[in-house]
Amino acid sequence: MAAILPDLATQVLVPAAAVVGIAFAVVQWVLVSKVKMTAERRGGEGSPGAAAGKDGASEYLIEEEEGLNEHNVVEKCSEIQHAISEGATSFLFTEYKYVGLFMGIFAVLIFLFLGSVEGFSTKSQPCHYSKDRMCKPALANAIFSTVAFVLGAVTSLVSGFLGMKIATYANARTTLEARKGVGKAFITAFRSGAVMGFLLAASGLVVLYIAINLFGIYYGDDWEGLFEAITGYGLGGSSMALFGRVGGGIYTKAADVGADLVGKVERNIPEDDPRNPAVIADNVGDNVGDIAGMGSDLFGSYAESSCAALVVASISSFGINHEFTPMLYPLLISSVGIIACLITTLFATDFFEIKAVDEIEPALKKQLIISTVVMTVGIALVSWLGLPYSFTIFNFGAQKTVYNWQLFLCVAVGLWAGLIIGFVTEYYTSNAYSPVQDVADSCRTGAATNVIFGLALGYKSVIIPIFAIAFSIFLSFSLAAMYGVAVAALGMLSTIATGLAIDAYGPISDNAGGIAEMAGMSHRIRERTDALDAAGNTTAAIGKGFAIGSAALVSLALFGAFVSRAAISTVDVLTPKVFIGLIVGAMLPYWFSAMTMKSVGSAALKMVEEVRRQFNSIPGLMEGTTKPDYATCVKISTDASIKEMIPPGALVMLSPLIVGIFFGVETLSGLLAGALVSGVQIAISASNTGGAWDNAKKYIEAGASEHARTLGPKGSDCHKAAVIGDTIGDPLKDTSGPSLNILIKLMAVESLVFAPFFATHGGILFKWF
Amino acid sequence: MAAILPDLATQVLVPAAAVVGIAFAVVQWVLVSKVKMTAERRGGEGSPGAAAGKDGASEYLIEEEEGLNEHNVVEKCSEIQHAISEGATSFLFTEYKYVGLFMGIFAVLIFLFLGSVEGFSTKSQPCHYSKDRMCKPALANAIFSTVAFVLGAVTSLVSGFLGMKIATYANARTTLEARKGVGKAFITAFRSGAVMGFLLAASGLVVLYIAINLFGIYYGDDWEGLFEAITGYGLGGSSMALFGRVGGGIYTKAADVGADLVGKVERNIPEDDPRNPAVIADNVGDNVGDIAGMGSDLFGSYAESSCAALVVASISSFGINHEFTPMLYPLLISSVGIIACLITTLFATDFFEIKAVDEIEPALKKQLIISTVVMTVGIALVSWLGLPYSFTIFNFGAQKTVYNWQLFLCVAVGLWAGLIIGFVTEYYTSNAYSPVQDVADSCRTGAATNVIFGLALGYKSVIIPIFAIAFSIFLSFSLAAMYGVAVAALGMLSTIATGLAIDAYGPISDNAGGIAEMAGMSHRIRERTDALDAAGNTTAAIGKGFAIGSAALVSLALFGAFVSRAAISTVDVLTPKVFIGLIVGAMLPYWFSAMTMKSVGSAALKMVEEVRRQFNSIPGLMEGTTKPDYATCVKISTDASIKEMIPPGALVMLSPLIVGIFFGVETLSGLLAGALVSGVQIAISASNTGGAWDNAKKYIEAGASEHARTLGPKGSDCHKAAVIGDTIGDPLKDTSGPSLNILIKLMAVESLVFAPFFATHGGILFKWF
Repeated sequence: MAAILPDLATQVLVPAAAVVGIAFAVVQWVLVSKVKMTAERRGGEGSPGAAAGKDGASEYLIEEEEGLNEHNVVEKCSEIQHAISEGATSFLFTEYKYVGLFMGIFAVLIFLFLGSVEGFSTKSQPCHYSKDRMCKPALANAIFSTVAFVLGAVTSLVSGFLGMKIATYANARTTLEARKGVGKAFITAFRSGAVMGFLLAASGLVVLYIAINLFGIYYGDDWEGLFEAITGYGLGGSSMALFGRVGGGIYTKAADVGADLVGKVERNIPEDDPRNPAVIADNVGDNVGDIAGMGSDLFGSYAESSCAALVVASISSFGINHEFTPMLYPLLISSVGIIACLITTLFATDFFEIKAVDEIEPALKKQLIISTVVMTVGIALVSWLGLPYSFTIFNFGAQKTVYNWQLFLCVAVGLWAGLIIGFVTEYYTSNAYSPVQDVADSCRTGAATNVIFGLALGYKSVIIPIFAIAFSIFLSFSLAAMYGVAVAALGMLSTIATGLAIDAYGPISDNAGGIAEMAGMSHRIRERTDALDAAGNTTAAIGKGFAIGSAALVSLALFGAFVSRAAISTVDVLTPKVFIGLIVGAMLPYWFSAMTMKSVGSAALKMVEEVRRQFNSIPGLMEGTTKPDYATCVKISTDASIKEMIPPGALVMLSPLIVGIFFGVETLSGLLAGALVSGVQIAISASNTGGAWDNAKKYIEAGASEHARTLGPKGSDCHKAAVIGDTIGDPLKDTSGPSLNILIKLMAVESLVFAPFFATHGGILFKWF
Repeated sequence: MAAILPDLATQVLVPAAAVVGIAFAVVQWVLVSKVKMTAERRGGEGSPGAAAGKDGASEYLIEEEEGLNEHNVVEKCSEIQHAISEGATSFLFTEYKYVGLFMGIFAVLIFLFLGSVEGFSTKSQPCHYSKDRMCKPALANAIFSTVAFVLGAVTSLVSGFLGMKIATYANARTTLEARKGVGKAFITAFRSGAVMGFLLAASGLVVLYIAINLFGIYYGDDWEGLFEAITGYGLGGSSMALFGRVGGGIYTKAADVGADLVGKVERNIPEDDPRNPAVIADNVGDNVGDIAGMGSDLFGSYAESSCAALVVASISSFGINHEFTPMLYPLLISSVGIIACLITTLFATDFFEIKAVDEIEPALKKQLIISTVVMTVGIALVSWLGLPYSFTIFNFGAQKTVYNWQLFLCVAVGLWAGLIIGFVTEYYTSNAYSPVQDVADSCRTGAATNVIFGLALGYKSVIIPIFAIAFSIFLSFSLAAMYGVAVAALGMLSTIATGLAIDAYGPISDNAGGIAEMAGMSHRIRERTDALDAAGNTTAAIGKGFAIGSAALVSLALFGAFVSRAAISTVDVLTPKVFIGLIVGAMLPYWFSAMTMKSVGSAALKMVEEVRRQFNSIPGLMEGTTKPDYATCVKISTDASIKEMIPPGALVMLSPLIVGIFFGVETLSGLLAGALVSGVQIAISASNTGGAWDNAKKYIEAGASEHARTLGPKGSDCHKAAVIGDTIGDPLKDTSGPSLNILIKLMAVESLVFAPFFATHGGILFKWF
């Protein structure tokens, strides 16, 4: 039985969706670019049309003048934006130089290891799963895996870089729009996020699509080999993402922690005050860590879940029977996802309009709900058109008949589990609900109780997401084995464009606030950007929740594919080889977190010393008559993150290699399972604890309720305790926490890529004894 | 082939060793009791003989007079001791009342569940493992398991209570001895710890021994049934320990955190200042939490590891062939352990003498080394005499021949792994080494960096212990399957008497310091007790390290026994049922920690309010002219801990039941494995983080090095930051961390006890669908 959708239609639809996505991103970009950063027409900045463009909103007037709305404010914004953009670009280039070297070495390793499986023979071999057919030699796998790896790494790199460029383009524009009201600022920030979201989703899809078609020219009907080689794409994407997240995370948090500790705590000057020497580094950090890092990260997740689904599908009945449309079902899901997100975005930017501060969070929440509902219809459609009514999945030796409606359920359960995780995250990290308010309240008795309550909140926030993940896994696993899990992950990531848009919106707003402060804009404008930013903290936590949830599903699917490929029939916990892997694997996230947190701590210490030195030695700095030396702080962050990102990166990249080579595939499977089940918990709790502390502080600062006002104002003992919590949360939520999901995915995809080598030459320690 | 040691000798040796242990404890107690708490002979307290006794140390004179060494100091100490002892006794009675109710209900559940396996039939049934024999009915198992459960719970309760009594007897005596020098104080505290250690080790052994012999009268040659029923003893011990740890932990930390937050941070008065209304509650807490809780905890570990080894042994060749001596090998190990520890203790109390503060930690460390070395010889002896040269172990259907020297290796690897864990813990928590000094140094930049560095330290401290545990598991598992793991756990706990002695020494010294402060004794005496206490923090962390390491091994062994008993052949991670268990199991320690930490936080908030209220409303309190209302603070701690210990206790006790009944044994095995591998990590990191913060604070306070002096003195900003860290660490190291090892053991032993029921009636959810 074949799918309803003809293969030709699939060949057209996938790239078409990608093109639509890119076109939509361009349109959004054009709309953002209408906010002019130059103010040539003196005295005319306030006139409609110049700043508001022609998108039907030109009737807005700049609400606030206060003598600040002058030529030099725009100029100052432009200047700061320029400094941030330059700092970010220069850091990313430095980072990419070092990572490039590492990736080059790793590419060679991939080639050598995989090539050696059959001694670099160029002869065709019997296929791994269908022994009666001939497949391409291991050498081809080595070459194409390496190429795919490089392709994935480069795409990830470009994704992160483009994201950063867009964000630094949008931040000052959001600030300027904030003069006209919170709604305009929101739309600018959100549109910019959408540019990034759609660009990444579309380019990830189109590069994968092209790679499959180009590799297919050589592989012909050896789909098993083709999709095995394609997994290199996921590995490349994730490796790059790891360094992006860790390096960017250390950069941003060293600057942030350093700036806060001296500025806010010791000198009692506001956040983002231009007198603070670390302020530029802090704002650069938001762009290289939260934006570029996250862009690479979610791209990696997306690439891996697609690869996991493809490689499992390649050994299902439509892989073996060469049914093109069902084989590309994962790509079709992503294509429909772009369209669904496109519709969703219009609800935020065109169908509704935000007029007050308290409408921001509901608007972002609506994005999640709308995209999920629209996408559910999309999935049903794709499952009906793109799949045969029934097909066969191979599951560790056994066969399983799956119906298309069952696969629909798998994708849908992933999608909806993502929504649940999103809502739970919101509940635990938004200051509109009692958990964060309780944490804020505990500041009454000082920083210690704040930290105790915050940690407890993070631990508690793990419960429901884990049940949601467990339920998705159980359902999708039961219905369609590992393929079900892989498409569930894809389901969770299918609305990635929207997810990225609301995720990127956060750091852009954060930066916008910083620019407002630095440009000396009025208190009311700062209040607006703060409101945008508070909502951004929550969406950032939600984004991390998605990333972690999908990472759990992706790594399980990759793990399953690895086990298949390594020809292990069971991963029995009750064998010593597996058990030691399990317990050591569960330890790795701790090791990794220890490294990254210590890195942030040490780098922050250096930053603190430099900032203190400048305050003490530069006369007129506190009075605002002299400019601080921003460049030295930028350099401290850059040097620290470059130096410190290598050890944790190496830990993650080398662990599977060492275990596979010395202890073999059984121990490695234990390691993957252990890292997965333990890493997910720490990742969720770390992200949510950090998000909650940040928003508890913002809750006290904003003083929007009676309760909040009893805790504040800024500078009170309560507020000081809240700032300490926020600072502790910084490395948890932006360095170690979000890197952990990459850890678990990356180890799984790396094991899968190297599986042929481990299965042939691995476990030498046990072979010796 | 039989063992060299005749059965009669075994029958004599085991109780004899227990009697020797108890006699030794009594001797130590007599020596401690020579320190008189009454000062009838006015003016004669300083005379030799009255205070120093006749143990060859009477040549010591009281070094320090300073006008304080008077009648009323002794009287004051006695009064405070009385208040603490009374508070502790009253709390424990209240606690036992509530826990007793819970345990009663649980005992009924055990009877009903296990009795229902064969519908309360009184007919004999074919044995589970050797189908050709007849075994006692399930109803007998239900009855005897219930009895064993109650026995274990009562022994655990008595252990904790006795420990508390001894500690509250010894604390003031240590204070008084501190007047004569640090060496005398050390010996008093250590001897008291030894009383507890030997009493517990011996009574745990003798009760188990008697139970086996009494149950044996009914069971006859049905050893399979006999030792299955005996596992109830472990369950009872651990259940009691859970409530003891959680309840005591909440009590002590609510009081401690509350006292510190107002006293040290807000009012700037020293720790244990008698003006602080929470000071008595704090000192009571040390006794009910650290002493009674830990006593119950380690007794539980000991009982469970013995039960795990026995139940696995009962289905080995010497179980089936009824070889009594090898069957009691686990008890022989414990018997020799008592003798080995007895020799070890003499090195601390009689062979060497402590004269300076910096000799304390090395002396305690030597205890660990000596006991390990002596015990290694003991194990070799027992393995040679008590085991046949070779025997057969049944391992999930397969058979395995094991030699006695292999079993020696299993026990020895556990023992030495314990030592390694002890040393690593010491390295990370003692302020003699760089990790704690780094944490102290990070206080320069405030509480936030202190917390970041402390958390990173805790995460990092997990690495080597996990490798040590993994290596022990791999070796013992490979050599002798689950029996190997069980005896490795027993090996780690074989020096429990010494472990408990140095562990109990800590809180006794802590209390002694508190009493010195409250009795208004001189600064020099306080300095001595502080030095004892600093070493005690490290030994407490070491004790927790042992408890956690052994818990990991014990629960794996119990898990193995459970899997055997539940007739599961593999626990394959790659089945959905097992995987969801694994990921949810890995989440449970987080859930549990969230509950316990939040409980401490809330209780501490209440305490803070009460203490503040008293300071604000009682005139003359700060001036020391009026006494605070200690009783209200004691009541707050009592009420909070009784109320708050139920939910986390219920979570741990009910999770295996719910999962077993609704999801069946596969999911339950996943749950156990997940909780084990995840819980171990959090437990180690939480304990060590807390210990490190505490000692970082002590490092700054003591100011013993050039570096430390740059951070101090007390009251400096650095010190304040360190106090915040210490406060955060309190619930981590004394409430949630050490309770987690009980969580993983308890869930495993409970699953084992209920295994017959789950195997017959479990998994109803999957049966329905």
